[in-house]
Amino acid sequence: MTSASIVTIGDEILIGQVLDTNSLNLARALEEKGIHVSRMLSIGDNREDIKATLEAETARNAVVITTGGLGPTKDDITKSVLMELSGSKSCVEHPGQLEMVHRILKNRGLDVLPANLQQAMVPDTAEVIVNQLGTAPIMVFRNLPGGGTLYALPGLPHEAVGAIHDVLEDICSHQHLGKILHRSIMVYGIAESALSAKIAAWEDALPADIHLAYLPNPLTGIRLRLSCYSGEKADASERMEFQIATLKQLLGNLVYADADSDLETEVGRLLKESGKTLSAAESCTGGEIAHLITSVAGSSAYFLGSVTSYAVAVKEKVLGVPSSVIEKHGVVSSEVAAAMADGVRNLTGSDYAVATTGLAGPSGDGVNPVGTVWIGVAGPHGTSTVSRCYKNDRKRNIERFAASALDFLRIVLEKEL
Amino acid sequence: MTSASIVTIGDEILIGQVLDTNSLNLARALEEKGIHVSRMLSIGDNREDIKATLEAETARNAVVITTGGLGPTKDDITKSVLMELSGSKSCVEHPGQLEMVHRILKNRGLDVLPANLQQAMVPDTAEVIVNQLGTAPIMVFRNLPGGGTLYALPGLPHEAVGAIHDVLEDICSHQHLGKILHRSIMVYGIAESALSAKIAAWEDALPADIHLAYLPNPLTGIRLRLSCYSGEKADASERMEFQIATLKQLLGNLVYADADSDLETEVGRLLKESGKTLSAAESCTGGEIAHLITSVAGSSAYFLGSVTSYAVAVKEKVLGVPSSVIEKHGVVSSEVAAAMADGVRNLTGSDYAVATTGLAGPSGDGVNPVGTVWIGVAGPHGTSTVSRCYKNDRKRNIERFAASALDFLRIVLEKEL
Repeated sequence: MTSASIVTIGDEILIGQVLDTNSLNLARALEEKGIHVSRMLSIGDNREDIKATLEAETARNAVVITTGGLGPTKDDITKSVLMELSGSKSCVEHPGQLEMVHRILKNRGLDVLPANLQQAMVPDTAEVIVNQLGTAPIMVFRNLPGGGTLYALPGLPHEAVGAIHDVLEDICSHQHLGKILHRSIMVYGIAESALSAKIAAWEDALPADIHLAYLPNPLTGIRLRLSCYSGEKADASERMEFQIATLKQLLGNLVYADADSDLETEVGRLLKESGKTLSAAESCTGGEIAHLITSVAGSSAYFLGSVTSYAVAVKEKVLGVPSSVIEKHGVVSSEVAAAMADGVRNLTGSDYAVATTGLAGPSGDGVNPVGTVWIGVAGPHGTSTVSRCYKNDRKRNIERFAASALDFLRIVLEKEL
Repeated sequence: MTSASIVTIGDEILIGQVLDTNSLNLARALEEKGIHVSRMLSIGDNREDIKATLEAETARNAVVITTGGLGPTKDDITKSVLMELSGSKSCVEHPGQLEMVHRILKNRGLDVLPANLQQAMVPDTAEVIVNQLGTAPIMVFRNLPGGGTLYALPGLPHEAVGAIHDVLEDICSHQHLGKILHRSIMVYGIAESALSAKIAAWEDALPADIHLAYLPNPLTGIRLRLSCYSGEKADASERMEFQIATLKQLLGNLVYADADSDLETEVGRLLKESGKTLSAAESCTGGEIAHLITSVAGSSAYFLGSVTSYAVAVKEKVLGVPSSVIEKHGVVSSEVAAAMADGVRNLTGSDYAVATTGLAGPSGDGVNPVGTVWIGVAGPHGTSTVSRCYKNDRKRNIERFAASALDFLRIVLEKEL
């Protein structure tokens, strides 16, 4: 199996100023191609340390990817260390990257300074992948003294992520990797341990060349990814589809998407395809549901708006929840969730509405445990509610309440649309 | 300067399944104590690799902190590698951790299995810091063959973060570190480069033992941190306060807090202290402002609620924005932002209200550039508006619009309360 190492270069990570997300994104992309990431390192802007680390890593791995240290300022020394390491005697101007330097600075309304032009100068031992998003070129050093190939990427996350596709393509065309097929489905509403138990028999019976991975996330549920390591075989795709179909049948409506996705995108797709509109009434989720829905580009086609009714008076006056219902059942109740959903649906004239009322914490109401939420969904075929109970962790509860509400809405929409 | 290395152990990071936040949190805490983090590594659950890495790191650093690999399952082998490395012949039961194992499992309603009891067994070469949040003890191995001291922490982020305070205390009591004083202020509404230019003369004149760091974040602005490396001197604190006072005078109302904080906390503090209430009307921010405000525990004391008015009809019907104003000035305008703020203030009866209308992208309105936002703040002394313009990046624009709105509200509240 081809082995890779990821090295991030820069003091800002070592002092805890910046969270390293590049390594995660690179690791995920490498792993999907069947390349084994043996280690990740973060080192500072220190010449000896960079040189010793890259020598060691290129001796132990077929592929080494670095990010960072390619800027035009004095503290960025990765390029000069790489010249030394690869035995380069001089730099040559790369016309494609030079054009990009001019274009990027012009777009930003900035003058082109000598330091900027220097960015297009590349060691004569390197091949270049033009960086479409920044001034520093992506450099490829093949067959370094240690044996490995090194890819030097810029450190800014959007530039590093933007380079992944081209770097992976280059790796694949040089490393003779096996063909791997991946297929994902998205699952919500079941704990990882319970899911694992539910599909244990199916998982045990998987063919030896098909492997299952759990990729959990509090806002999107669990992504179940099947990988087939005999992707070159003629029947590989068909065998994968058979396993996915079996899995979907086992899990029923716990499955909300047939590919990598999230709940707000799926809810949006269901509404858009049917031409229906949505509104929301939020108490404990405090705007998070509206925020998730409107984070999807194009959501203005189906989302009319929402009311965050933190105060009881807003529930009564704006949403029209009868004070008698609140008095009789309490704010955190099935009845209030239903009345909030009905209220915001009437107020906005939307086809569907989703509502939440609950206790995110840290303080409770003396009746319901902290972590309780009631969710209401109102639509042309009536109003239904459901409750969930999590722990006492305010920020995570807000996320879980919002995701649970989107999932309950998704189940109603799937049934009714 | 004492040097440290941070090593995360576990396959889940190398395959890109989990983002490593432990290293950032540890690095930040170490750096604040004046300990230099020389490198961070992530390695897999592989015996040879763990052993070789820890041998090398404890030879090069006075302090090595590991996270992960301490669970009760077969793939967690950190403890057994550490026995080998420290020359431990046997494990002894640690009564304090044993009690914690029983307490934690009881709280979760789980039976205590042999694998759980095994968690309280500790190599006889280790000292223990009881883990208050999980079953695996925090283990301290002093004077390993390489010379350094190793702290083995659990991998779950809340357990690792929960251990930092005790670990730092232990390091400080053994490493004879100099005393460092830190003081932070929070700044919003100015780019890092402009801020740097604005305070250049002051920064250049800083005494040699006082150092400035910029810690930027899109949602909270820039944290400016001053560190004094002669903290043991009698006048250190006074000299720091003088510099902070000078800096605050230079920056005026760009400064929103006198310590590490965020805008939603500061807005909440201003409202709470004066007994005033708040509501919000959001268009382009789609619920993010309400979400930020309600993410602060205790926000129900001052936040009444909000309306997300994505559709024009909701702006008119629920918020009472006159259709003539929308026709004359367009949805993205000072007049509509003001009318939205007035509208939600009337609707909820709050003392203050904040409103946004703008273009988060990717599509525009043909008039204003994508990235434009108008912010309105209404209160007992009148209504004012301001506009900002960012780039075409939907998710970042929603964050920046919301933070800008909270900052404008903060400035109005500081003036009026």
